[in-house]
Amino acid sequence: MDKIMKACILFFFLFSNILFAQLSEKKLDNYKNLADRIVRSALVEQKSYGWLKDVCEIGPRLSGSEQSLKAIHYAKDKMIQLGFDKVWLQPVMVPHWERGELEEAFIVEGINKGKKLHIASLGGSVATKDDGITAGIVEVKDFDELKLRSDEVKGKIVLFNRPIDIGLVNTFSGYGGAVNQRGFGAIQAAQFGAVAVLIRSVTTKMDDNVPHVGAMYYADTIPKIPSASIGSIDADFLSEAIKNDVSLKVNVVFNCRTLQDIQSYNVIGEITGIEYPDEIVVVGGHFDSWDKGCGAHDNASGCLQSMEVLDLLKRLDIKPKRTIRCVFFINEENGVRGGRAYGNYAATVKEKHIAAIESDRGAFTPRGFYVTADSSKILKMQGWLPILKKSLINWIEKGGSGVDISFIKNADALIGYVPDSQRYMDVHHSANDTFESVNPREMELGSAAITILAYLLSEEGF
Amino acid sequence: MDKIMKACILFFFLFSNILFAQLSEKKLDNYKNLADRIVRSALVEQKSYGWLKDVCEIGPRLSGSEQSLKAIHYAKDKMIQLGFDKVWLQPVMVPHWERGELEEAFIVEGINKGKKLHIASLGGSVATKDDGITAGIVEVKDFDELKLRSDEVKGKIVLFNRPIDIGLVNTFSGYGGAVNQRGFGAIQAAQFGAVAVLIRSVTTKMDDNVPHVGAMYYADTIPKIPSASIGSIDADFLSEAIKNDVSLKVNVVFNCRTLQDIQSYNVIGEITGIEYPDEIVVVGGHFDSWDKGCGAHDNASGCLQSMEVLDLLKRLDIKPKRTIRCVFFINEENGVRGGRAYGNYAATVKEKHIAAIESDRGAFTPRGFYVTADSSKILKMQGWLPILKKSLINWIEKGGSGVDISFIKNADALIGYVPDSQRYMDVHHSANDTFESVNPREMELGSAAITILAYLLSEEGF
Repeated sequence: MDKIMKACILFFFLFSNILFAQLSEKKLDNYKNLADRIVRSALVEQKSYGWLKDVCEIGPRLSGSEQSLKAIHYAKDKMIQLGFDKVWLQPVMVPHWERGELEEAFIVEGINKGKKLHIASLGGSVATKDDGITAGIVEVKDFDELKLRSDEVKGKIVLFNRPIDIGLVNTFSGYGGAVNQRGFGAIQAAQFGAVAVLIRSVTTKMDDNVPHVGAMYYADTIPKIPSASIGSIDADFLSEAIKNDVSLKVNVVFNCRTLQDIQSYNVIGEITGIEYPDEIVVVGGHFDSWDKGCGAHDNASGCLQSMEVLDLLKRLDIKPKRTIRCVFFINEENGVRGGRAYGNYAATVKEKHIAAIESDRGAFTPRGFYVTADSSKILKMQGWLPILKKSLINWIEKGGSGVDISFIKNADALIGYVPDSQRYMDVHHSANDTFESVNPREMELGSAAITILAYLLSEEGF
Repeated sequence: MDKIMKACILFFFLFSNILFAQLSEKKLDNYKNLADRIVRSALVEQKSYGWLKDVCEIGPRLSGSEQSLKAIHYAKDKMIQLGFDKVWLQPVMVPHWERGELEEAFIVEGINKGKKLHIASLGGSVATKDDGITAGIVEVKDFDELKLRSDEVKGKIVLFNRPIDIGLVNTFSGYGGAVNQRGFGAIQAAQFGAVAVLIRSVTTKMDDNVPHVGAMYYADTIPKIPSASIGSIDADFLSEAIKNDVSLKVNVVFNCRTLQDIQSYNVIGEITGIEYPDEIVVVGGHFDSWDKGCGAHDNASGCLQSMEVLDLLKRLDIKPKRTIRCVFFINEENGVRGGRAYGNYAATVKEKHIAAIESDRGAFTPRGFYVTADSSKILKMQGWLPILKKSLINWIEKGGSGVDISFIKNADALIGYVPDSQRYMDVHHSANDTFESVNPREMELGSAAITILAYLLSEEGF
């Protein structure tokens, strides 16, 4: 009986789903055929992958950098050339931090004297003195251990050496569990008198000695100490070396700098809806990157997939009912100024944002979409899975969407595109995030998946 | 009303599913917890990935080669060292084809005289004469075009130049649509008097000039002409060059050879079931490879994942009710002798094979399982998806299982493990199928997925 009761409950759940969310068979077939055409065109023409090559050739796109502006103008010109109905730049003032020419670390005292360490200053860090900082190393795993051993820290360089938990299936969860060292390690260590911090690279790549960079923060009331990432192999080396050698000292020197805020832009293009031009489906991601590699996965790919959403509709002569707008947000990595600026714009215009889809998890093979919306809307979207499956989307689940679109407060649904996460943290924020690390088929299936969902949102609404 | 009718039909379908296939909530939770432990152990310890490194260091494992025997003994020794309950070699006589030391092609007449072409003789091909074959090129897309143009072929080298249809999402479908050129091109061309064939590499990699090899076949009644693969870029080059230059001639020379059949082995290990020792769940794949790269994806990974299934159960102290047996089949690539031999064994012993799972689609991120079984069994297995999802398995569908296990005629279910296919054909049968092309997390999630399914089959049966 228990089983029968459960079955009845499930039945009513499914029944309501079928009654309220299911498309007619004919409509479903039409959408499936269209999805097949979208997927084929993406895979054969590989447009976004081609644009990725162009953008990667410009170089990395750290907010405020010359290359970021070059890439912004490339994107704007490309959108015009592709014939989008409207194309514009939204001005955004962005922070302007620059890596210096000088960036080195060596063991300068003890039995390993002369050994070079692979480091990179973290985004937002202050520089060291001209001749660097020379000090012994105190290694800790986390802030609790730091607190317990706070009396050892004064005058030392603190090495935060907790790796990502590679036992977690979702590498973003692993990242989330390790990245507080990078973000707040300098604040935590400085309050106990540390003179600098080295942060183990936040990566899943175990045999990697490439520093993985990213943002770090200071508190106004606590001294600002230099902060750098260190390759995993060198972090392990230091960890072993200090066990046997109390005399070990490291010299760290780098001359990064924070300049005045500088003018930059979100790049925006749209295909205007033929029935409801003021109802908007946003597709987008951040266009800025860190200054290592070329930010291919993080996140040129997400932007260029969004641009291909519009181009796919155009080249297949599909005219959406609602406006589909791609937004290349600037400055997600170290300020989120672009996301905030677009959010402010969205709050003031008369348009209604019915949904926004963010792609910022790498150009890997599609898996699903996370949706922040009320349950009935998620249920409706789940009814589209037989169509989305054409692009290898297997699931739609309640979950977090994306940093930039989270500022579009009046949208009915905020959606995060979720590709496979297994390889992302291998290259994330490192010199290995290059064009060569992207597979064209994986990237293009992402373009197709987002196109299919954006079009369904445009046609079916909520 | 139509919708309500449909809902009712669906309800009864689901209802029967719930009544007959669903696990109790407690059992489901226990299995989910176990699945979490399996996934964590696979991802953290990366055992199969470590063994992959060992096997790749031995070299490629073409049937009959010295390295194939070295790898077979490595596997047997490793299974003993891991403490499996039984380990044995099943003798199998295998074909013995060898690539020669000499393997070259050049344009020798015409305006591109002197240009080198990237070729590799195909498995099973006869050699050319000592000074090679020199002839003009006739390019065709398929056997129909060959037939239409059969009067042009006599004395010529036929270039079969139909690429994979990259517009298909499943790259195995793309492969299936192009590979008949490689398998049967020599027969087709020889019947019209061709003196050799060059086959465009069957690959999804568009900018690849690496020959992708594989098996080719002769017919007894038709002359055996030399057959080689040619890199995609060179195939495109030749295609253009012959349009403008009727005088173009190519010299192809290679000295591969077919030797006498030679003794080889399937490697078999098992953990004996504690309740039903004579009921068997096989996990396996083929251990032989082509002789380019090291057959990392195709298919050392599939075998080593199977070996890790047993090791995962042992290291987590899980004692299966039924026997779980891993089989490293020899000679799938050019004879399938190992699969046939195990099938014969399975048909004669008193054991009952309840299921077999084959892994032979690369070490990429898990997606699903194809199952050949009656619908009620598939339905039952689909009830396990909430458990399998822990290892990123999203679906179980009716479909083809695998070449080697297809000879186990009395099994209740034949199952193919399906990882993501997007990158497989980039490296398949080529010098790029190396250890470095495998991501440890993707491979280990495959080990975990197969372990979870094998264990559920062992505990729940059908």
